[in-house]
Amino acid sequence: MNIIEGGITAPKGFKAAGVACGIKKNNKKDLAIVCSNDTAVAAGVFTTNRVKGHSLQLTMEHIKTGYARAIVVNSGNANACVGEQGYTDAKEMTSLAAQLLQCKPEEVLVNSTGVIGMQLNMPSVRSGIRNAVAVLSTEGGHDAEEAIMTTDLVPKEIVVELEIQGETVRIAGMAKGSGMIHPNMATMIGIITTDANISRGLLDKALKDVVKHTFNRVSVDGDTSVCDMVLMLANGEADNSGIVKEDFEYSKFRDALELVCTSLARMIAKDGEGATKLVEIIAEGALDEEDAYKIVCAIAKSPLVKTAIFGHDANWGRIITAAGYSGAEFDPNLVDIYIGDLMVCRNGTALNFDENAAKKILSANEVKIKINIKRGNYSDRMWTCDFSYDYVKINGSYRS
Amino acid sequence: MNIIEGGITAPKGFKAAGVACGIKKNNKKDLAIVCSNDTAVAAGVFTTNRVKGHSLQLTMEHIKTGYARAIVVNSGNANACVGEQGYTDAKEMTSLAAQLLQCKPEEVLVNSTGVIGMQLNMPSVRSGIRNAVAVLSTEGGHDAEEAIMTTDLVPKEIVVELEIQGETVRIAGMAKGSGMIHPNMATMIGIITTDANISRGLLDKALKDVVKHTFNRVSVDGDTSVCDMVLMLANGEADNSGIVKEDFEYSKFRDALELVCTSLARMIAKDGEGATKLVEIIAEGALDEEDAYKIVCAIAKSPLVKTAIFGHDANWGRIITAAGYSGAEFDPNLVDIYIGDLMVCRNGTALNFDENAAKKILSANEVKIKINIKRGNYSDRMWTCDFSYDYVKINGSYRS
Repeated sequence: MNIIEGGITAPKGFKAAGVACGIKKNNKKDLAIVCSNDTAVAAGVFTTNRVKGHSLQLTMEHIKTGYARAIVVNSGNANACVGEQGYTDAKEMTSLAAQLLQCKPEEVLVNSTGVIGMQLNMPSVRSGIRNAVAVLSTEGGHDAEEAIMTTDLVPKEIVVELEIQGETVRIAGMAKGSGMIHPNMATMIGIITTDANISRGLLDKALKDVVKHTFNRVSVDGDTSVCDMVLMLANGEADNSGIVKEDFEYSKFRDALELVCTSLARMIAKDGEGATKLVEIIAEGALDEEDAYKIVCAIAKSPLVKTAIFGHDANWGRIITAAGYSGAEFDPNLVDIYIGDLMVCRNGTALNFDENAAKKILSANEVKIKINIKRGNYSDRMWTCDFSYDYVKINGSYRS
Repeated sequence: MNIIEGGITAPKGFKAAGVACGIKKNNKKDLAIVCSNDTAVAAGVFTTNRVKGHSLQLTMEHIKTGYARAIVVNSGNANACVGEQGYTDAKEMTSLAAQLLQCKPEEVLVNSTGVIGMQLNMPSVRSGIRNAVAVLSTEGGHDAEEAIMTTDLVPKEIVVELEIQGETVRIAGMAKGSGMIHPNMATMIGIITTDANISRGLLDKALKDVVKHTFNRVSVDGDTSVCDMVLMLANGEADNSGIVKEDFEYSKFRDALELVCTSLARMIAKDGEGATKLVEIIAEGALDEEDAYKIVCAIAKSPLVKTAIFGHDANWGRIITAAGYSGAEFDPNLVDIYIGDLMVCRNGTALNFDENAAKKILSANEVKIKINIKRGNYSDRMWTCDFSYDYVKINGSYRS
C-alpha cells in the first residue's frame, strides 16, 4: 500500500472538472463534477443534523439505488432553508447533469455548501454544469477540489495504491471543510473514488466503518452543519475479480480506505479556520467506548483548551476540567495527563514539570494531548486545532 | 420590591472585607471574607463537574450542618488538583478563620478560584485571612467583590429591598465569573446574603429553584469549572416573624431572590471574556422542558453563532443549524427565527429581510435571538455573549 501523487481522477475510469460560474465572488471556482465513465457502485454517509440542505436530501434519495455515475457539487451556497424552490433547484441540477452525461437523474448525486438561506442563482449553476461537463478530463481532479473549497486554505487530496486479487487498485479522496466541523459531520464534504470491483454491501460497510473513526473524529469548533456528506464511487475498472466477502482482500481495501479518510480528516483539522496547528486528543483507560468518545469530544471542543494551545500555554487544568464535565465516569484522583510525551499531571495531581519543555512541545505544528483515566480498557482519539484570532475574524464576517 | 444601592453587606448584621495578600500579581485584592454577626442559615449549589476543587469539596461537607458564620474566598488559585495538600490547606483556611472569628471551623465555608494545579501559597493566604478579619466592616462589601474577581472587568453587585411579614428585608448578591462559564455552573462564584428570617429547608429550596433558571442559564464559552458555587446566608436580623411555609411571603422572597440572581447572571454574561454585548437566546414551542433547554444551550454555545453576532452578521443559518444538532425534536419546516423583533426565517425558509435593520439590531449592547419551533408549549432562555478577538487573547495566556 503506497501513497502516490494525484487527485480524485487517479483511479481508472474517472474524470473531473471544476469551474467558476459566478456563485462565489471574485471568479473563484465554485462548481465541481466528478464522473465515472460507467455506472459505479455508490455509498454515502450524511449529516445527522435535523436540518438538512435540499441538495443533500435529494442525494439521500438517489443513493438508495446503490449506483451512480456522477457527483455535482457547488460551493458558495448551501441550498438550505429556502423552501420548495431549493428542492426544485437540486432536482434541476441532477437532471441537467444527467442529460449532458447521458444517464438517469437518479444516477447523479448532488451537494451544495456555503451560506444557508439564499436561493441558488440557477442561471449561474446551469452554465457551471454545462461548462464543467464540457471540460471533464482525467486531469481535472485538482480543479474539482478547488471548486468545492469554501474557507479552506489548502486543497485536501490523497491517492493510495494497493494490490487486490492480483490487480493494482487505487483509492483517491478529496475533501473540503474548515469551519463548522464536528462529528456527524460538520461543513464537510468528502468524495472518494476507487476503481476496485467491490459489492454494494461491502462498499457501504467499509465506508460507514471507516468514517466513524476518521471523519467523525474531527472537531474544529463543535458546530455541525446541514450539508455534510461523504460519497464514494467504485467503478470496478481495476478488473480485480471482486470483493464480495469479508476476507483478507476486503481488509486490505478497508485499511487503504482508512488511510485515505484518516489523511483527509487530519488535513481538515489542520486547516481548521484560523488554526495554527493540528491537535490530536487521545483518551485512554475509559470504561467503555462511549466514555472514551465523550472525553475526547469535550476536550476537543473546549474553547479554553484550544485558546491555551494557541497561546502555547500548558494549562492542563482546562483539560481535566473538560473531562470532568464530559459526562464520562472516572475518578479524578486517578487521572494522568500528557502534553506530547511530557507528563504534567499524575493521579489527578499537578507535577512540577518543565514549563519550557511544554512550551516547546506546544509550539510545534502538531501537538498530542493524552489523558488516561485508568478506569477500563477503551480508548478513542480526535483531531482538532487551536483557536486563534483568525477564527473570530473569519467567522465574524463570513457572509460579507 | 426595590433595587437599592449597596453591596453584600447591605442586609443587617453582615460585614465583609477584601484584601491583597499576594496570591495574585500586582498587589490586586485576592482574599475576601463575608461574615454574619451571628450564625446564619446557609444553603449552597455546587458545580456538577466530576473534578472538584479541594476548597469546594470541604464546603460541601461543612454546609451539611445547614448553618454558617462566614465565607472565605481566595482568587488567583483554584486550589484544585494538587492532591492531599489541597484539602489540608482548605481545612487550615477554615480553622484559622474560625479561630479569629470565634466560631467552629464547620461554620466557615471556603472557596478558591483561579489557576488549577498549583498549591496555595499558604503564608500569603494566612496573612490574607488575618488582615481581612482585622478590617471586616459593614462598608467592606465592594472590597470583597473586588477580591473574588479574576478576569472580570466589572464588579457584579446588587441589593433588593422588600417587605416581608411587615418588616423590611434585604437580599444582596455579588458574583464573579467571566470565562469558563456554562450551566452547572462554570467558573462562577455567587454569594448572597439576606437578613430575612427563613427556615433552612425553604432557603435551600428557594436557592436551588432560582439558580436553575438564572445562574444555570448563563453560557460564555460552554466550559464549566471545578470550583463553582453559589452560597447564601440568611441571618434573620430583619426580625420578620419567619418564613416557614410556601405561602405568599415565601413567594415574595423567592421573587426577590430571583431578581438578584437574574441580575447577576446577566452581568456575568455581559462581562463574558472579550464580550462586546449581552445576548439572550430564547427558544419557544418546544415539546418539553428538556428540548427547550437543548436548543438554547446549543445556540448559546455555538462559536459560529457567537462570532457572527460579534461581526453584526445576521447569519441565522447558523442558528437553525445549531438547533438542528441540539438533539431536540422538531420539524425544520416549521421553524421561525427572530433577530430582535425582526423575523428572518419563517417555516424554515429564508425571508427577504432588511439586512441593514438586522445589522442595527446586532450592533446594540443587548441582542435578543428567538427561535420558535412550533412543536409544543415549552420555552427556555439563556444568556450569553458574543465571541471576539479578545476572548482568544485573554485565554491564550491566562496563566502568564
